Amino acid sequence: MAIAQLADILTLRNDVFKAYLFWSAVLVLKMLAMSWLTAVQRVATNTFANAEDCFRRKDKVKYDEARVERVRRAHRNDMENILPFFIIGFLYVLTDPSKFLAINLFRIVAFGRLIHTLVYAVVCVPQPARALSFAVAHLSTAYMAYHVLLYAS
Amino acid sequence: MAIAQLADILTLRNDVFKAYLFWSAVLVLKMLAMSWLTAVQRVATNTFANAEDCFRRKDKVKYDEARVERVRRAHRNDMENILPFFIIGFLYVLTDPSKFLAINLFRIVAFGRLIHTLVYAVVCVPQPARALSFAVAHLSTAYMAYHVLLYAS
Amino acid sequence: MAIAQLADILTLRNDVFKAYLFWSAVLVLKMLAMSWLTAVQRVATNTFANAEDCFRRKDKVKYDEARVERVRRAHRNDMENILPFFIIGFLYVLTDPSKFLAINLFRIVAFGRLIHTLVYAVVCVPQPARALSFAVAHLSTAYMAYHVLLYAS
Repeated sequence: MAIAQLADILTLRNDVFKAYLFWSAVLVLKMLAMSWLTAVQRVATNTFANAEDCFRRKDKVKYDEARVERVRRAHRNDMENILPFFIIGFLYVLTDPSKFLAINLFRIVAFGRLIHTLVYAVVCVPQPARALSFAVAHLSTAYMAYHVLLYAS
Repeated sequence: MAIAQLADILTLRNDVFKAYLFWSAVLVLKMLAMSWLTAVQRVATNTFANAEDCFRRKDKVKYDEARVERVRRAHRNDMENILPFFIIGFLYVLTDPSKFLAINLFRIVAFGRLIHTLVYAVVCVPQPARALSFAVAHLSTAYMAYHVLLYAS
Repeated sequence: MAIAQLADILTLRNDVFKAYLFWSAVLVLKMLAMSWLTAVQRVATNTFANAEDCFRRKDKVKYDEARVERVRRAHRNDMENILPFFIIGFLYVLTDPSKFLAINLFRIVAFGRLIHTLVYAVVCVPQPARALSFAVAHLSTAYMAYHVLLYAS
């Protein structure tokens, strides 16, 4: 990368970096929203993780409430998949990849993870909805890592 | 971003980047310390997660020891909130934001998360101590994501 | 950092950045593989986390199957340690550290975490195998955070 190249990569004039910024911000907001979704389910089921969180007489400490745990599994799955995407997506941008491929990979990851949350934690949809949305985002992220690995080899 | 601008952003002469570096390093160390805090509670309560970790006669495999699980919940909450901050904070720095706002948002996230750990996993303080420390860091991170989203739109 | 310096850092001509790219990509792929390792154990033990995942008559929803939970603990430990490394490793590269030290720290983190997975989730090896592999990666990451902290102070 020459001087001009790096500055040409980390700029809004580079559509790949712009798409990465946009979809990363969307996915950060989506992940943060999982905390609120958990809170909604906790209040709705009067189920809390700590004694100091129980204010109402019917509130109880409970770790196996199905509706709460379902959201928490979706949230953990986000951490397992979206957080590695954030870093490898950025490193992938730095390799100056094909514009068409990169932008569409970012879209696939973003839509895959948005749909994953929807069918896992909002409305429970039968398989293979969750498996497919997981797989397309997972494999796209793995491809970026593979691309970065080859680039640095 | 012109060439000079990018180099002007990712430099210690940029107080925003300097604050991001400083508080990110503090929060990485804080997160790593959670592993040690968990270990201290495991040894203190003779509670371990694997058979191969039990060396003393009184050690046992147990997954519901309150003191251990409280630290693990605090640690998981760190992953849910601090890890997204790391990436969106960096992308926010790249948007060349207002110096005053950015530096104070980083401070709010850092102090919010330090206090969150303190009142959750070190000394158990009644609510709303934990809820407030969570909320200020959470909302500051969400604002950065919103700012990056607008910037890239 | 002068203009030339930043462009000299984020380039394949910089062996430190090249090593960071390479080992980060390896560790992203390793982390993603944990999902598949979990799936293998779920199918092998007919143990699933959701009712909609049970297709065969013998499949059941169960949250305490030892082989599945062991892989999930290894995966969570990856998130606790590798995800903070990704960000602090990148910031450490930006501080233009000693080439010899940086490249070897990246190798230690990578080998530490690869061995950690091997002895935790693939073949169960007696302690201190897991404790040592955890500690070398953990302390190397903490050193990078300490270095970044001093750099930004």
